[in-house]
Amino acid sequence: MTANATSNNSGFKVIGTTPIRHDATDKVTGQARYGADINLPGLLHGKILRSPHAHAIIKSIDATKALALPGVKSVVTSADLPELSGRPVDVAEGAPVNPRFLSNNVLASGKALYKGHAIAGVAATSVHIAEEALSLIEVDYEVLKPVLDGKEAMEPGSPILHDRLFHSEGEFFRAGGLKDDDDHSDPTNVASHFIFEVGSQEQGFKEADVVVEREFRTKPVHQGYIEPHSATARWDHDGRVTVWGSSQGHFAIRDFTALVLGVPISQVKVVPMEVGGGFGGKLVVYVEPVAALLSKNTGHPVKITMTRSEVFEGTGATAGGYIWAKIGATKDGRITAADAHLVYESGAFPGALVNLASMTIFAPYDIPNARAEGYDVVVNKPKVAPYRAPLGPPAGFAGETLIDELAAKLAMDPIEFRMLNAAKDGTRRITGIPYKKVGYVETLQAAKDHPHYSAPLGGPNRGRGIATAVCNNITGPANAVVSMQADGSVGLLEGSSDLAGSRTAAAMHVAEVLGIAAEDVHPSVGDTDSIGYTAISAGSSAVYKTGWASFEAARDLQRQLADRAALIWDVPVEEVDVNDDVFTHRSNTELRLTLKEIAARQNATGGPLVGRAGGVWGGESPGFAVHIVDVKVDPETGKTDIIRYTAVQDPGTAIHPQYVEGQIQGGAVQGIGWALNEEYVTDDEGRMLNASLLDYRMPTALDLPMIDAVIVEVPNPDHPTGVRGVGEVSIIPPVPAIANAINQALGIRMAETPMSPGAILEAIWEKGSE
Amino acid sequence: MTANATSNNSGFKVIGTTPIRHDATDKVTGQARYGADINLPGLLHGKILRSPHAHAIIKSIDATKALALPGVKSVVTSADLPELSGRPVDVAEGAPVNPRFLSNNVLASGKALYKGHAIAGVAATSVHIAEEALSLIEVDYEVLKPVLDGKEAMEPGSPILHDRLFHSEGEFFRAGGLKDDDDHSDPTNVASHFIFEVGSQEQGFKEADVVVEREFRTKPVHQGYIEPHSATARWDHDGRVTVWGSSQGHFAIRDFTALVLGVPISQVKVVPMEVGGGFGGKLVVYVEPVAALLSKNTGHPVKITMTRSEVFEGTGATAGGYIWAKIGATKDGRITAADAHLVYESGAFPGALVNLASMTIFAPYDIPNARAEGYDVVVNKPKVAPYRAPLGPPAGFAGETLIDELAAKLAMDPIEFRMLNAAKDGTRRITGIPYKKVGYVETLQAAKDHPHYSAPLGGPNRGRGIATAVCNNITGPANAVVSMQADGSVGLLEGSSDLAGSRTAAAMHVAEVLGIAAEDVHPSVGDTDSIGYTAISAGSSAVYKTGWASFEAARDLQRQLADRAALIWDVPVEEVDVNDDVFTHRSNTELRLTLKEIAARQNATGGPLVGRAGGVWGGESPGFAVHIVDVKVDPETGKTDIIRYTAVQDPGTAIHPQYVEGQIQGGAVQGIGWALNEEYVTDDEGRMLNASLLDYRMPTALDLPMIDAVIVEVPNPDHPTGVRGVGEVSIIPPVPAIANAINQALGIRMAETPMSPGAILEAIWEKGSE
Repeated sequence: MTANATSNNSGFKVIGTTPIRHDATDKVTGQARYGADINLPGLLHGKILRSPHAHAIIKSIDATKALALPGVKSVVTSADLPELSGRPVDVAEGAPVNPRFLSNNVLASGKALYKGHAIAGVAATSVHIAEEALSLIEVDYEVLKPVLDGKEAMEPGSPILHDRLFHSEGEFFRAGGLKDDDDHSDPTNVASHFIFEVGSQEQGFKEADVVVEREFRTKPVHQGYIEPHSATARWDHDGRVTVWGSSQGHFAIRDFTALVLGVPISQVKVVPMEVGGGFGGKLVVYVEPVAALLSKNTGHPVKITMTRSEVFEGTGATAGGYIWAKIGATKDGRITAADAHLVYESGAFPGALVNLASMTIFAPYDIPNARAEGYDVVVNKPKVAPYRAPLGPPAGFAGETLIDELAAKLAMDPIEFRMLNAAKDGTRRITGIPYKKVGYVETLQAAKDHPHYSAPLGGPNRGRGIATAVCNNITGPANAVVSMQADGSVGLLEGSSDLAGSRTAAAMHVAEVLGIAAEDVHPSVGDTDSIGYTAISAGSSAVYKTGWASFEAARDLQRQLADRAALIWDVPVEEVDVNDDVFTHRSNTELRLTLKEIAARQNATGGPLVGRAGGVWGGESPGFAVHIVDVKVDPETGKTDIIRYTAVQDPGTAIHPQYVEGQIQGGAVQGIGWALNEEYVTDDEGRMLNASLLDYRMPTALDLPMIDAVIVEVPNPDHPTGVRGVGEVSIIPPVPAIANAINQALGIRMAETPMSPGAILEAIWEKGSE
Repeated sequence: MTANATSNNSGFKVIGTTPIRHDATDKVTGQARYGADINLPGLLHGKILRSPHAHAIIKSIDATKALALPGVKSVVTSADLPELSGRPVDVAEGAPVNPRFLSNNVLASGKALYKGHAIAGVAATSVHIAEEALSLIEVDYEVLKPVLDGKEAMEPGSPILHDRLFHSEGEFFRAGGLKDDDDHSDPTNVASHFIFEVGSQEQGFKEADVVVEREFRTKPVHQGYIEPHSATARWDHDGRVTVWGSSQGHFAIRDFTALVLGVPISQVKVVPMEVGGGFGGKLVVYVEPVAALLSKNTGHPVKITMTRSEVFEGTGATAGGYIWAKIGATKDGRITAADAHLVYESGAFPGALVNLASMTIFAPYDIPNARAEGYDVVVNKPKVAPYRAPLGPPAGFAGETLIDELAAKLAMDPIEFRMLNAAKDGTRRITGIPYKKVGYVETLQAAKDHPHYSAPLGGPNRGRGIATAVCNNITGPANAVVSMQADGSVGLLEGSSDLAGSRTAAAMHVAEVLGIAAEDVHPSVGDTDSIGYTAISAGSSAVYKTGWASFEAARDLQRQLADRAALIWDVPVEEVDVNDDVFTHRSNTELRLTLKEIAARQNATGGPLVGRAGGVWGGESPGFAVHIVDVKVDPETGKTDIIRYTAVQDPGTAIHPQYVEGQIQGGAVQGIGWALNEEYVTDDEGRMLNASLLDYRMPTALDLPMIDAVIVEVPNPDHPTGVRGVGEVSIIPPVPAIANAINQALGIRMAETPMSPGAILEAIWEKGSE
């Protein structure tokens, strides 16, 4: 792995170094405990019965035979859940959710809305008995015609999923709701329709000398986390439910589980386990409430672990959809206008993040007249979930393909063209909100200066593509508590579920403040009873917010250390100078105490020292990425090989450059998979035909060259250590960069994903027949 | 269970009530996880080879055959532990410990010093293989003559346990040390000898009109906790050791384990499990370092769980020993002088708590001239451990028997006689340190007023005895962190291992401060990485210190809640009045916010609120107890039945009166067992003959009447809620109270424990033959 981090001139001592992560040995030695690695006395095993139909009325469910099977302890259906309101509510610091829809996705009520939709849960003394019991549950379905395509679902006469779906106009952030009883408007599958617009389309395109436009289609893909969903729940006789599971936010899981079960949040305790990947897919509840219900019924703890097929068929893939986009520029290369029309399938319940796609599509540019119109449409597929920069890759695919076309038409270098139009501090975005400090130009410049950009391609059927993207991080509340141990080491308790090293990054913030080694900070992720509310590890935000909270908690501790030094010297604390881990008497600089010395004396000077911080550590801090890819396309087979890949990114300050590189590489690989191979292959009845990791083709280490990650640090001035956020943006550029490279290799503009060998062969034949 | 709590006039709303403890349902439903209830991937099982001899040189240990047994993964001996200093050091906020002795008790080095002394540890793939491997370890012993009695061990020519034992003079609190190389004084088994003295013995006994004196002997007894010791250790490849186990202080276990292993404390993390009783016996390490070593050698986690026989033979019982005591009083009932000579067996290594016995023996009284001389003597028995008011029962046996004799000789009511001489605020103790606020007279008065004291005995061979005692609590550092949840519930993280409801008592302190229900506080006990140093749950101190820390953490939270109210109203915080959970605008009292309302708005007003407190929550606060017992002795069999038992005690404020009653009852029952039945029956070679709970006779529910616990609240003015401490003192009075009752029933002064049927028959025969 090449460490190309720019030199760190900030004077940090710990931040910017690369200590071994605190959870490393646990993980490489197999000792780490993931979601399913919990075993409790009397544990029962749960399984979920799933709909074989993409769209069907559930006329009846008869569990008599299943319950008669020895070893079967309970069967639950949606009838065991409280009926919840269909009006969206704010939960867990995210976008509003619709309680009814959330519950109905956990266990189908009235209708099965996708193949794989959970119908019933079974608890038994073994997994095998539970599986056998599933086959004994008799469900009487009335099969309906499904609708599987977003644009078709908008057509009059299309099958309707929800009779009372409320069609919202102009609302960007919504979970979808149900109509009031007195609203007799026509049934629809369109959950929301909105327009972002700045400037004037008419004026903008009038000013343009060159205009490009194109339609793009992308298939649903799955986050492909290695660890399937698993939850173990124990409903105690005092009414408290404890849930062990891996997620991207145990406070969110607590709040959602409580919502679905109809109990107060304080009745649910969620204990975070190690997480084997999430990428947006472990933000919602699937099996947690079912395990809880089965535990309530049986008096035993119940564990439910999905199979890989269940993960594919029963959890949120990202949305597939359609984009039409158009961009115009003047002869001298100034973009004057951009327009887009996006239709995204949210699956069975509203909530495709088409709003985010709409904000992403033209985001890297300063465009005076920009517009994006989005539709969130329900179809008979699994309810979608966010996937790393939600819908960024399709949006970037459209935007960056057109930018590439424009640059080509204008005969401009694609990086020069982007620089000319680059978003800068103060640039107004499509939402009307201006950017604050951004590092796009610096990132473009680093890409341009990289040897990759000017290296010869070295052979036929090769092409080089570049693409850029920006992703806003989301942040939110976080907490941290630090405890001074007698030997000068520090315990850190925080609340961010750790997907990719956030524990270590948080510990580094503590170490930085206190002037100690990262290894001397021992971080733990607290359960929902042990630490205060901490928002989800998503939106490139875990290190941003928990790093900040840890930083402030360490400062709280450091202030108390200074108090102790003052006490020991019997002087006012104002007389104590603090420099890293050394406390000096201002008037008598011979008097010095190290942190270790004060730590050793803490019980003699008033007792153990504990620092704390809680807050909403906010402020968006967009991070830009510029990717360069060389491909080689075999015209005989249509297979595209990635020959060389360079990913340049501004994470703000790189707290732990190795992990930043890992994130950049991981995102790039996921984007490459999205570009070239990954897709849900579905038959006409909505059945997924490739619901296994053998058939759903994710890239492996053998498929790819080393991704050269280049860090360009433009620190975020609003964060105490300059963090922006890392995780998401690198998934966006691969799809358009590869499409642009294929265009250079073959002269073909690909406009659908995956750009699989079959799709490329078809495009080659089509071009040949022109 | 009769709740006889005096009415609570302190204005508390939560303190003094009896909410169901937070761990109750887990425990009654079998879901709670105790020391052995941890299972980890790849877990190996450890067993300990123990010496069959009470005193023997270990000439060689050959593990070849054991290691050849399939499934055996490692064998360790003391050679695998670092050689440690023989000079006492301060560890874990307790009395100094001798690292060498601590280590040598964990694994014998050079000599086996008691039957059951750990010689080697084995790790294997199953418990059965590990057990078989024990029989394959070949140890070449040179058997030495043991010494089993403390007074014999002091004689010249007695077998010597430690050639280089340092004999200390005048040091009350010591762990014993080893002599310097240039100290060639004679070898001895006497580890320490000290004298407490106030006033003048000569003068005091000269003033006495009546003098009584007697010798007392007590046998070792065991704490008898239901849960055997168990530790599971995982030594990770990064050098960190995690230990799961139940103890009375996971920070102490951490520090001792690190000491024995020769690693920094920050390399060890101890995760507390639920504790099935400790009573002083779970303060030190036995299997923890062995499990850690075996894990280090094998790369697997290793669990070692003792059998009951191992608990009896390999862990610390309380010391057996000898007391001679003498008290004199004037005709009008004023005690003028008291003297005692105490010899206590510390087992194989120094550290009988004879100093505590010496402080306890005359502690309830204002005695102008008092003296106690103590000897700490090593013998070939397991190293002793504290047992609930360490050595209090033997000391009380001596002191309170003589007080009873004196009262009888003076023809005074035994309570009146005690009242006349009762320790009060300012009374100088044998240590020279005066009492602060004490509630002895109030407790005596409550006993005198109790119907039991004046009830008729109702039959022949019956007697009534009373006895009193006082126990100082010890306290120390503690920590607490409270997290405000969105629904107004509060998470509490603290560091006291919970033996008897301290979690709930701590939660009640939080609830009291915040004006919420105890059920809305969710307490957890943090591991050593998650919370700051917290001293042991011993010395009647857990609720004292962790209650105080929780109280202060809640106040820290409450101040921040007031800050938020001020922020919402845009006024200085001085304008906010706080009354329980209601925050009122001082100048505009119509403006009110409840804690729940602020909690719901916390993320909108700055983020999650977390309160913290760490400190040394100190100050001794003696609690007195007065017990009344009626016995019926069968002169044919010598069997003593407890007919009625009343235990009056001043715990200061009774935080949770039911648990206070439970503690009082539990201590009384343990004291009754000590008085009547419990003893180590040992043969001449030092082998325990009754090392099982079938043969070691503890009282059961069927043996005893309901213990009527009477709480007399004399709040401790130095504690924010008035706590003194509860756990220990009630074990002291039963032995003398029963002896005094037997005297009334039979006219026989018993002076040895147990006062078993055999011992009583012998005494009856002896009396008959007089």
